[in-house]
Amino acid sequence: MKSKSDLDHSYINQAIKCSSISIIGDPDAPAALKGSNEFIMTENGRKTIAPNSRVEIAKAWIRRKAKTACSEKMLHRRIPILNWLPKYSSDDAAGDLVAGITVGLTVIPGALAYAGIAGVPAAYGLYGSFICCFLYIFFGSCKDVPVGPSAIASLLTFQAARGSWQKAVLLSLLCGSVELLMGLFGLGFLVDFVSGPVSSGFTSAVSLIILTSQIKDILGVPAKGSTFLQIWSEIFKNINETRAWDTVLGITCIAVLLIIKIVSGIKVGPPEDELQTRKHKIINKILWLIGTSRNAILVIVCGGLGFVFHNAGGAPFKLIGEVPPGLPTFQLPPFSLSANESSTGKEESFSDMVYSMGSGIVVIPLISLMETIAICKAFSNGKPVDATQELIALGIGNIANSFVQGLPVAGALSRGAINNASGVRTPMGNIYTAALVILALVFFTPYFFFIPKSSLAAIIISAVVFMIEVKVVKPMWRTKKSDLIPGLGTFFACLMLPLEIGILSGIGLNMIFILYHAARPNITVETLTTPGGAEYLMITPDRCLIFPSVDYVRNLVTKHSLRQNLPVVIDCTHVYGADFTAATVIENLTQDFSKRGQHLFFYNLKPSVCTVFEGLSPVDFTVYYQEQQLDELLHRKDKKLAQLVEIRCT
Amino acid sequence: MKSKSDLDHSYINQAIKCSSISIIGDPDAPAALKGSNEFIMTENGRKTIAPNSRVEIAKAWIRRKAKTACSEKMLHRRIPILNWLPKYSSDDAAGDLVAGITVGLTVIPGALAYAGIAGVPAAYGLYGSFICCFLYIFFGSCKDVPVGPSAIASLLTFQAARGSWQKAVLLSLLCGSVELLMGLFGLGFLVDFVSGPVSSGFTSAVSLIILTSQIKDILGVPAKGSTFLQIWSEIFKNINETRAWDTVLGITCIAVLLIIKIVSGIKVGPPEDELQTRKHKIINKILWLIGTSRNAILVIVCGGLGFVFHNAGGAPFKLIGEVPPGLPTFQLPPFSLSANESSTGKEESFSDMVYSMGSGIVVIPLISLMETIAICKAFSNGKPVDATQELIALGIGNIANSFVQGLPVAGALSRGAINNASGVRTPMGNIYTAALVILALVFFTPYFFFIPKSSLAAIIISAVVFMIEVKVVKPMWRTKKSDLIPGLGTFFACLMLPLEIGILSGIGLNMIFILYHAARPNITVETLTTPGGAEYLMITPDRCLIFPSVDYVRNLVTKHSLRQNLPVVIDCTHVYGADFTAATVIENLTQDFSKRGQHLFFYNLKPSVCTVFEGLSPVDFTVYYQEQQLDELLHRKDKKLAQLVEIRCT
Repeated sequence: MKSKSDLDHSYINQAIKCSSISIIGDPDAPAALKGSNEFIMTENGRKTIAPNSRVEIAKAWIRRKAKTACSEKMLHRRIPILNWLPKYSSDDAAGDLVAGITVGLTVIPGALAYAGIAGVPAAYGLYGSFICCFLYIFFGSCKDVPVGPSAIASLLTFQAARGSWQKAVLLSLLCGSVELLMGLFGLGFLVDFVSGPVSSGFTSAVSLIILTSQIKDILGVPAKGSTFLQIWSEIFKNINETRAWDTVLGITCIAVLLIIKIVSGIKVGPPEDELQTRKHKIINKILWLIGTSRNAILVIVCGGLGFVFHNAGGAPFKLIGEVPPGLPTFQLPPFSLSANESSTGKEESFSDMVYSMGSGIVVIPLISLMETIAICKAFSNGKPVDATQELIALGIGNIANSFVQGLPVAGALSRGAINNASGVRTPMGNIYTAALVILALVFFTPYFFFIPKSSLAAIIISAVVFMIEVKVVKPMWRTKKSDLIPGLGTFFACLMLPLEIGILSGIGLNMIFILYHAARPNITVETLTTPGGAEYLMITPDRCLIFPSVDYVRNLVTKHSLRQNLPVVIDCTHVYGADFTAATVIENLTQDFSKRGQHLFFYNLKPSVCTVFEGLSPVDFTVYYQEQQLDELLHRKDKKLAQLVEIRCT
Repeated sequence: MKSKSDLDHSYINQAIKCSSISIIGDPDAPAALKGSNEFIMTENGRKTIAPNSRVEIAKAWIRRKAKTACSEKMLHRRIPILNWLPKYSSDDAAGDLVAGITVGLTVIPGALAYAGIAGVPAAYGLYGSFICCFLYIFFGSCKDVPVGPSAIASLLTFQAARGSWQKAVLLSLLCGSVELLMGLFGLGFLVDFVSGPVSSGFTSAVSLIILTSQIKDILGVPAKGSTFLQIWSEIFKNINETRAWDTVLGITCIAVLLIIKIVSGIKVGPPEDELQTRKHKIINKILWLIGTSRNAILVIVCGGLGFVFHNAGGAPFKLIGEVPPGLPTFQLPPFSLSANESSTGKEESFSDMVYSMGSGIVVIPLISLMETIAICKAFSNGKPVDATQELIALGIGNIANSFVQGLPVAGALSRGAINNASGVRTPMGNIYTAALVILALVFFTPYFFFIPKSSLAAIIISAVVFMIEVKVVKPMWRTKKSDLIPGLGTFFACLMLPLEIGILSGIGLNMIFILYHAARPNITVETLTTPGGAEYLMITPDRCLIFPSVDYVRNLVTKHSLRQNLPVVIDCTHVYGADFTAATVIENLTQDFSKRGQHLFFYNLKPSVCTVFEGLSPVDFTVYYQEQQLDELLHRKDKKLAQLVEIRCT
């Protein structure tokens, strides 16, 4: 204790003082001291000192929370239409109109096709594409998101509902409720735990699986099974049953779509906007329009072909067949299945249905959120994305969808890109998309009969083939090679296991990386000399000291300090946090050094971490904040040691 | 690209250069630059520069690994007896003899009692207490560990084997094999992920559960059930069936043990060793000896009592009954159960047995390791503890035990303390303990018949009551309050759920803390002025940029930089790592700033992190390492911007 009172101007030994410690020494020489600042997030861009007492902090927190929850700002945040509608201009209206109709032209063929991925009749795809759009206008926070069936959500729906439309509709309700609850509890941050590599691996695997299932449709081969390998082995087994006309039509459609895509990417005239003539601009606009609506054009042409063949005595390729005309009835989602509705041939109660869907009820909301947020981020120009609000908007949309027999929906990345490129200005664009879908349901369903199945398959294939993110591998290799492990891990896990298990294993694998990071800090060991000429050992850990790493650090410190019997300084500049386990280990460490009579100092320890360590009142725990203090400290300690030896000897 | 070549002396734009970058500027002004050093663990205490090429690193790593695996050093590490036996002195022999016999006196009553916790006849406890001791002499790396049945391992054995000795013995084999495999794969580090609070919570819960089960024995009340709440409710239900004599004997025994413990803690004479007379020393030694062997004394006295009562026509309290005389037979562990051996009344195959033990096969090894390492750490005086070697030693011990019908064993913390206090010098102490156990088995088994059950229960109670770590709560509160959450969480989870699920939930809860740590860095925002007088915004994140945190950081940076339209500097002094996701976000960030025409600089970025970011070749990515460079950089950027505007205007 004597040594402590000696040195009280160079370190603080009481826990309570530490929490409001100011940096010792010249405050205008900040470079050397930067690490010891309290890291407090300040709203006004200036540094503030944290209030001393914990109670005050808690009170302030509660007051702040209560205030924000009831504030007008919160209302605006939760119903984003209040922000933009009052400022809605005619320019906004024009942009939204064009974008909404363009997206609508891709949504209709898309919805028919994605219903096929989900394994339900085509109409259910359209049923899921309008009411959620209306609601998104009120609750959606991101202008570029066109809600509706997406390839990924449809595949997950198929894996959970196994092609029963009743289950798919119930799934909408359940997923919507989960999303809404997650939103209300503010769990939007969960999406942060899906890293880029995991997300790429997952998307690529999903694309490959969808591609596989559509190739099966194009070949017209009967192939059962849901995993990637099963389907391919079935396709090869039944390859001799290939239906020639379906195959020809499908491959032709794919070729046409890809050619249009390439051609529409060509720009005539000079590259600068300013230098293009009026003619150039018109041609470019027409090319872009053809490119964007290529799916709609293909469906109309192929539908015409189907119509001609059908009237000439039967089409040689499969058509999608009867689509019930008119809007869906507004009714409760099915909460039970009768014996002939169920695939097992037995009656299924609500709990049976829920049980059969398994983890899909939680995984679909998470993946839908992931996909939606990906769109928001892609076009946000760096503005923050409110994942929690998106959860709420998706949740409300899905719940409403389940009352009109819609599939679970999300924001589809490909349509998001079209929406953005068409110049969307606000979420209002969704209203035109919804109107188009309603028009289609009311007036055009009789004509959907003639659309060939393989043309829809071709649309899906030429979309998902670009979702296989092969080109992300190279930058990943150049930036951080180890990130390929979770990326490829997720990819192969998703191909070989059920999708939800695949992505969860990928995320789990990635978490292990974080835990390893926390457990094995890098440590630099240097032999340095003080200004006064004394040699000492400088040991610098590069991150926080928490339980998985402290024993490792202790072992290294002990090893090096035993090898070179010099005073040891632990440079804590980078130690931003510590826990109880770290405090016990530091206590042991100071004890060991004290027993050996070797000096141990802590340099530049953050006050909040200092408080943690001093909670256990370790022996001989000395912290200093300026390099020149070390000489003085060494001198005093040596003198004290000499005195101690003297006392013992007398 | 032009801006890059302009500034090439102040930052490095090629990824390959970065990995061997040296700090720019005056190397003798290190304080401001400390964060940008490459953190390389150097063995000789001096800084070395990492080899440039990754291939070379890999080659060197493989060479090093191959070398260590075959080296003499490794042999000494894996068979630690080779280290200490050649230097074994007569002082060592004396210390080990005293300690070994003292521990032996506590092992014998302990083994009989712990067999009760495991729900198997008393003899199996002794069978598990000698062969593992012999083997530990060769393979154990820690002098203070006395292997044998422990309270915690016995409780876990009970939960997995449900009182079948055959299953308990098979469990020894399986746990031993798992430990050996984990050891050979070097998985000892897993124990790092059990934090202090989780370990305390677990130990306390286990102690309470054991206490509960022993109170049941002392009251002589029949109570079935394995969780804490079940047993207590059963005890209260059947409280009127309390056997008076068992209760009286039990409570008396507990009182006697606690009194001896307190009395033996008293020291006569002056506190300093040097000032004590010979008489003082002898009295203190005797008191200590009585204290240490109090369990043995109690068992002998109570056994005598039982003998007297039994011969006088039947003891009024339960005795442990027949213990088969002699050493166990050396035979294979039971790999199947016949119908009358099985508790279910049906034959059980090997796979049935394994299935019924469930996760115990993995959890017991982990918990045993945790307990053993706790002893090593407690008495290591800061020397590194080799968890992997302990796994190997425990594994070999358990496998051998299963051939002599022993229970799964570990190092018991309470006996470890006795071992250390008795002056043990090497693992050789175990040989005397093993010899005592063998003597007991060969000569004293007939006398064990008369030991009252409630005296054994009293021994356990007065041991485990001190394992309830109530006193750890206060320092935890003073150091890091949030650590109480995993601590108490583990405690209650272990009381209410099966133990293995309880501790796994506690560890999982603790992991969430680490993940949260990684996801939400603290960020300081300051408005500073350059030496040249220009204002800028300094944003300092305090830890690495990896996937869960980067979007959060990006949002904050964007928010603050939009609010104050100043040049922004991100101080990367504390950013020790980054991944692919971070690189993509940084790329987006630089793009956003570039579009807005706002300046963005990275200060003091570690070369290895710089390499990661530059893998995606971000636009306008400028790093500098010296404060005074900022003015020059700002000047150049402004000039370039002006030029650009000029070009556009002409």
